[in-house]
Order: sequence, then structure tokens, then C-alpha cells
Amino acid sequence: MSRFWSKIVHDLDPYVPGEQPRIEGLIKLNTNENPYPPSPKALEAIRRATDEPLRLYPDPVSAELRETIAASFGLEAGNIFVGNGSDEVLAHAFMGLLKQDGPLLFPDITYSFYPVYCGLYGIEAKKIPLADDMSVDIDAYRGPAGAIILPNPNAPTGIALPLADIRKLAEADRDRLLVVDEAYVDFGGESAAALVPDFDNILVIRTFSKSYSLAGSRVGFAIGQRPLIEALERVKDSFNSYPLDRLAQAAATAAWKDRDWFEATRSRIMMSRNRLAGDLTELGFEVLPSAANFVFARHAGHEGASLAAALRAEAILVRHFNKPRISDYLRITVGTEAECSRLVEVLRKIL
Amino acid sequence: MSRFWSKIVHDLDPYVPGEQPRIEGLIKLNTNENPYPPSPKALEAIRRATDEPLRLYPDPVSAELRETIAASFGLEAGNIFVGNGSDEVLAHAFMGLLKQDGPLLFPDITYSFYPVYCGLYGIEAKKIPLADDMSVDIDAYRGPAGAIILPNPNAPTGIALPLADIRKLAEADRDRLLVVDEAYVDFGGESAAALVPDFDNILVIRTFSKSYSLAGSRVGFAIGQRPLIEALERVKDSFNSYPLDRLAQAAATAAWKDRDWFEATRSRIMMSRNRLAGDLTELGFEVLPSAANFVFARHAGHEGASLAAALRAEAILVRHFNKPRISDYLRITVGTEAECSRLVEVLRKIL
Repeated sequence: MSRFWSKIVHDLDPYVPGEQPRIEGLIKLNTNENPYPPSPKALEAIRRATDEPLRLYPDPVSAELRETIAASFGLEAGNIFVGNGSDEVLAHAFMGLLKQDGPLLFPDITYSFYPVYCGLYGIEAKKIPLADDMSVDIDAYRGPAGAIILPNPNAPTGIALPLADIRKLAEADRDRLLVVDEAYVDFGGESAAALVPDFDNILVIRTFSKSYSLAGSRVGFAIGQRPLIEALERVKDSFNSYPLDRLAQAAATAAWKDRDWFEATRSRIMMSRNRLAGDLTELGFEVLPSAANFVFARHAGHEGASLAAALRAEAILVRHFNKPRISDYLRITVGTEAECSRLVEVLRKIL
Repeated sequence: MSRFWSKIVHDLDPYVPGEQPRIEGLIKLNTNENPYPPSPKALEAIRRATDEPLRLYPDPVSAELRETIAASFGLEAGNIFVGNGSDEVLAHAFMGLLKQDGPLLFPDITYSFYPVYCGLYGIEAKKIPLADDMSVDIDAYRGPAGAIILPNPNAPTGIALPLADIRKLAEADRDRLLVVDEAYVDFGGESAAALVPDFDNILVIRTFSKSYSLAGSRVGFAIGQRPLIEALERVKDSFNSYPLDRLAQAAATAAWKDRDWFEATRSRIMMSRNRLAGDLTELGFEVLPSAANFVFARHAGHEGASLAAALRAEAILVRHFNKPRISDYLRITVGTEAECSRLVEVLRKIL
């Protein structure tokens, strides 16, 4: 507390990220990182850019990266906005597009940064309960609203909505913006990017942190029709002209182009996820159907918090949220085959 | 324009950064970059960090970098805030500390991002005219105000205030926050960091973009007493948990530790600046006394805009601001000795 704090600072309830402890030998399944390294071509691109030109500002509009991404979707660079991680892209979207007269709708169980952004920008939030099976019930999003934001697949449940449902939501009110946060879409979801040419009220947000193994580089992006992207650009150019450094631009561009690496690593993770879900079910866990690189599971005989603590004692970190409806659950990132096996082995001992 | 834009987006008047054209052989003296490469130790630190761990999120609190900076000032890591370039640090300071009931005071001629931040966060700005000699007149900052922000040295004039004046401003009202933006202080200014232990109403903001040759890495920081830093942390943790990527943290930490490189490059730039100012004066320019890595100069016989255009035709970029009081001036970044000589040679031909 200080007499110099703005009013807004007093009332903030900041986001708490998963731990990033510096412990050797830890099995880190708590922040949904990719267990496989980034594309060797991305690492090579960083090495090539690590030289004298680092003295110069980066390209403020990240032209090459945006063109590269856009081409994959048959879109133009002007349909792509890039930011310092998808969290920054989300923040600009909250300020520039989701702050409306009506309330912003999102699920009661979802990415816990959404209510934080609402606090930061003074946006009225209206939480829509998930159905009993923890899926998003799109019929509950009827009625007047300023806008909607949904992760697809949802976090921390991992459950995906079919593209037909996203389309229905967008069609239901073409004057209401729908932001689809696709941080995990590459692990089994259907992307709403395909709807962008037909819907001026859909903005898709993606990240290089998960399926491109570049959480350490901080690159996220949005896909949308030109007026939506322009809103994000206006906020960005009033906030920080150069959000993406030279090495991040180089790494993301090369990682995006290396489709073989992307396909191989995400396939491996999806295979491990399916095996892990099976193993956990055998151990007596109820595992929600996941289309992400994590599973969300609970055990009838054990509390979430005590399971997380027991795993931690064995040097395995998973994420536990002490929140209504989900305090029984663990969110477990899909690691390498060896990490998943070790997790199952330790759980068998604990249970 | 779009029906989905928030009210704030309509009214924004975004910042326009200096050009970053991709033209070979250009002499780029328009964005105050350092003409010398980053410390070889910084480049080596990036290379060491370019590997498998890039799949993991960076340290969200940049502990090592903050400890490294703090130690140089005899302060604690808790006195240092780091961000994605000093522009992000400034943005958070505007939202978290400079948005007060009273108006925010800053010079009429100054960093042109300040009024943009005011627009973004709804802060009332009150511009205080520079004195006739283009220096900051601290007596003009008397009277009620929410807060003050000043670059020292000022940009684009390059003129520095003595530390005694900064102290006087802070002492004049201990309940009024004074933010000192020291982007250029290493080229001849006196840092207000020395006042931080005695003044809880001073926040100093610095950057790695200029004197550390890391504009391409995007790292800035703030120095202040704990409650001021905590305000910035609260905004940051409500906006983006991981603003500094792994490579930027590694580069900045190593660059900061390499004092020899820092001293050698900044001394060379100061020497070149003094020679350039002399040469320009000989050519008939009026050159303001600069404590920065640029000079601000005008020529009685030539308009600023036409001079900038003539230089551009010779592949030399300088910055011209088409604004009241300074439209006659050119802001010229100090380049290498060869670049400065070439500039003088071309100007001699033009004049």
C-alpha cells in the first residue's frame, strides 16, 4: 500500500501463475509446457540472429512472422496480430474489444486470468456455469451480452467444443464479439480460424508456448478480420511499439515453418495423453475427456490438495486449484513417456 | 472502425515510432540506437540459453536480472521492476502510479509517448513549456499536480537537468510522485537512482536499448522504494505474468555485468557526439547541449523537413518532428565515427 498507488492498483487481484521453481530433477507437470524441445530450426534461427543487429530495434510490426502465419490460413498479414505471449494479446483484446456496455460472458470454470483482466480494465464479468459434465453449454450464452470469451479446448478441463457449436454461438448474434482462446487447440481441437473469412465477430487467439515448445520465447497471436486486428494494433501502438524482440520473431517464424517437428511432437503428446488417461482411469481416477496437452482428473478416495502435496514430496509438480467445483481435481500436464510412467508409478504408491 | 471497438479505441492517438526500414547500406540515425554491438558476453549468454529449456516459461519475476541490477545500486531485488522495454515499464507506471486525481505534468517538448499513455489510461495531461533555451524550468512545476514525469536528459532536446534540480523537485512536494525517465542518462546525465533511498516519491526508469546496445532484446527497468515497485508488479501480474523471455533475461544480465564493454562503448559515443556537435556548429547549425546519444540541431538557412528529406535522398535517416517549436530541428543519433563523418560530408554538400 502506498499513497502513490492509483485507485485501480488497490483493487487488483493479480493472476497467480504456476510455480517455476529452480529444482534439479523435478518432473514439472504444472504449467502445460511441451515436454519436447523447440524445433532445431527455431534454435538455429535464434543463433543466426544473435549478433550485432541486436543493437537495433526489432521490426515493430513483425511483418515476416505475420505473413508466415497468415499464409497458412490463406489470409493476409493484416489478419494477424502478434504479441508478447498470448496473455498480452488477450490483455489488449480485453481493453480494445471486450470492454463493452454489456457484460462479458465466460465459463465459471476457465482460464483464471479472465477475471483478472476484467478487474484491470473495469469490465463487468458474467460467469456462465459449465454443465454438470464440465462441458460448455452454449445454450446458456443466449441473452444480451457485451461479448463472449471462451477457451477451446477449455482450461483447466481440457474439454473441446465442436466447431459447429462455435459457429452457432457466432451466428446467434452477429453484433456480439466472440473471442476463442485456442491455446491448446493443436492437441485435438478444431480451430475457429476456418470461420474467420465468414464471421467479422470472431477473433481467434493462439500461442507458440504449447504446441511450438516456445513458452520461453513469449509469442502469441490473434486471427481475425481486419477491423478487429486494427483495434489490437491501436492499443498496442499506444502501449509498447516493439512487443516482440528480434529473437522471438526469428524463433517463431522458423518454428511455424517446421511443420514436421510440429506434427511429430504434438502427435507424440496426444498419444501419451491417451495412454495417461487410461492409466489414471485404471487407478480409479475420473478423467475428463481432454483435447489438450493436459488432463483434468479427480479420485473419489483422495482430496486434490493432499494428492498434489504427496506428488510434490516425490518431486512431481502438478497444478491444484483451490476453487469451487474443481478443488477435487488435479490438472496434470502431459510429459514425456518416461515422465508419465513415473507419475503413474508414484500415484500407484500413494493411493 | 468497427462496431466491436471499445470506446477507448476510437479515441486513441497511437505513438508513431521512427522508421525501421529494411534497406541495405542505410546510415540509420533516426531511432537513437547504439552504433556498437552488444557485449560479446551478452551474445554468448543468449547462445548458451538457446536450447531445450526454451520450451519452459521464463522466470516470471526475473530474479537473477533484478538482483544483478539492484546490487550495483546497493539496493535489493525488490527495488527493481523489469519489463518488456522501458515503454512497457512506462505504460505500467502511467496506469498504476501516474493516474491520479490531479493532472500529470510533463514538458511540452518531450518523449511523444507520454500523451499517448495519457490517452490510453484517461489521465489528464498538463504540458509545461520548456524555457526559451529549451531547458526544463523546474520552477514551472510548482502548484498542485497529481504527479510529474520528466525524461532526464530530456528527449528530443538532449538537455540534462542537474541532480540538484531533481532533488529540489522531489523535495518541493513529498506527496507528489516524480518519475524520472533516464533512457539516455548513461551518456552524460546524473542518475536520480542515488536519491531513491531518501525519497519514497521518486521512481527512476531505465533501458537496455541505448547504452547496452540491446534495443533488439526489449528490456527496461524501474528503480524505486518497495511500495512503488509493488504497484508496478500488481499491474504486471494483472496483464502478463511473463513479460521478459528467457533470452532477454540472459542477455540483459550478462550485458549489465560487462562493465568494461559498457564503459568503452558509451565513452566512444560521447566523444563522437562532442565532435559531431562541433562539426555541425561549424556548418552553421545551432546545436543544443546534449547529454544523450543524439544531438538536436537546427540551421538558420534551412527547414528541418527539407534537410531530413535531402539526407534521406543520400541514404541517411534522421528524425524530424513536425510539431510546434521543434519543426526546425533535426534529431540526429550519434553513429560510429565513420557514420558521423559521412553525415557531415553530406550536409556540407547539401548546405
